[in-house]
Amino acid sequence: MPARNIRAVVSYDGTDFRGWQSQKTGRTVQEELLKALRGVHGHRVHLHAAGRTDSGVHADGQVVNFFSDLDGLPAERFSLALNSRLPRDLRVLSTAEAPPDFHARYSARARVYRYFIYPHSIVPPCLRRYCCRLGRMPALAGLNSLAACLPGVHDFTTFSALADRSPSKRREVYSAAFYPDGPFLVFHIAGSSFLWRMVRSLVGTLLEMESRGEPAEKMREALASRDRELAGQTAPAAGLFLHKVIYDESTSIY
Amino acid sequence: MPARNIRAVVSYDGTDFRGWQSQKTGRTVQEELLKALRGVHGHRVHLHAAGRTDSGVHADGQVVNFFSDLDGLPAERFSLALNSRLPRDLRVLSTAEAPPDFHARYSARARVYRYFIYPHSIVPPCLRRYCCRLGRMPALAGLNSLAACLPGVHDFTTFSALADRSPSKRREVYSAAFYPDGPFLVFHIAGSSFLWRMVRSLVGTLLEMESRGEPAEKMREALASRDRELAGQTAPAAGLFLHKVIYDESTSIY
Repeated sequence: MPARNIRAVVSYDGTDFRGWQSQKTGRTVQEELLKALRGVHGHRVHLHAAGRTDSGVHADGQVVNFFSDLDGLPAERFSLALNSRLPRDLRVLSTAEAPPDFHARYSARARVYRYFIYPHSIVPPCLRRYCCRLGRMPALAGLNSLAACLPGVHDFTTFSALADRSPSKRREVYSAAFYPDGPFLVFHIAGSSFLWRMVRSLVGTLLEMESRGEPAEKMREALASRDRELAGQTAPAAGLFLHKVIYDESTSIY
Repeated sequence: MPARNIRAVVSYDGTDFRGWQSQKTGRTVQEELLKALRGVHGHRVHLHAAGRTDSGVHADGQVVNFFSDLDGLPAERFSLALNSRLPRDLRVLSTAEAPPDFHARYSARARVYRYFIYPHSIVPPCLRRYCCRLGRMPALAGLNSLAACLPGVHDFTTFSALADRSPSKRREVYSAAFYPDGPFLVFHIAGSSFLWRMVRSLVGTLLEMESRGEPAEKMREALASRDRELAGQTAPAAGLFLHKVIYDESTSIY
């Protein structure tokens, strides 16, 4: 029986997850989804995700795919069947039939992340799980002139984690900018794909450089140096959201 | 030594609190604040709040006052001293010197509550703690014609909890309306004060009446009947926020 390829858009509150990927200890998004899929199918089902988000990182629009041998269930009803078995901090927003060769990770053309900064000294408790506190309002123009160095193809070793085993550190960034959104200052970045902790390292570095009044030249130097010592502190996970994953070039990155 | 009267604006994520008021079991906002006040003063301090919010209800702008015998601490620094001792789901947003006769509860002229409804079938996980799901988008005009019956002085027995021991059920509502706000449908209500669970009972009733297409006359009848049987189901606590408390008539209710 030819298996159906089902694509799902998934959202989660990362606060109480040890990230996407199954681990020896701790609750992960992948394990919860695999458990729900096993419940629906009666056997183990394989699962691929566009972005393997880290511990504490959230997702508005993570994309996954899995092969299903269930004949009777219309593709859009998988979301209902899965949600009835999932914890409330993890939801399948939609499910749809995908072509047999669709792969959530390898077919993705772009990933879009958003990082939420709360630029005041006291974070209202109902926002605390979803942003990072910064006790000051940075200069938007300064931040954006630093961020303007990022678009293009670069070796991002400077902003990689020591333990990152990616064979190449070259990635393409399509767009990177800060903008105000309600009470937040948001960093929006779209790229082909990202190194482990790269977005959080960029946010930490950009904020540090802005606070010291560094010119864009310093950011270009840090990038060119491939020296992790020149990166700032990695920003906390709570502010980061995998916003969307793009498969079709006509989809907006915003 | 004449004690200083300190007024504080307090915000909390009600999810993990058993409401405002100290109880035999369970964590309460009052207990956490009393503990922090005791830490700062070295002895027990009395505390009054404008609204005794229920289990699971949030506050953007709860107001409290307490008498302090600390001479050296500038009024606006109490917030810092308290926050360093408070859990992250409870923050003192600001503190200020108040006149000796200021009482957070008895001096209040109006309380403003907001109720957040998510009018779609799947609630994004990062919003789940702060809204109530409604699997449909109600007709705003219908809701608002029902809500328009509320302003004025009425006996709100219909929308009171059975256990409410208030000597009078008469209250004045200044304004009550639904409006869209981002992904939410918000019910905004301002009044002199509210009965226990009154706002949630009103929200539940208004949504039920709208879904049945009832005319405003039905809402007026329910209000006039003083019959709790005519109220709808009490809406869940997670959607409700004590938005602000007004002491000065020149302050906007919005």
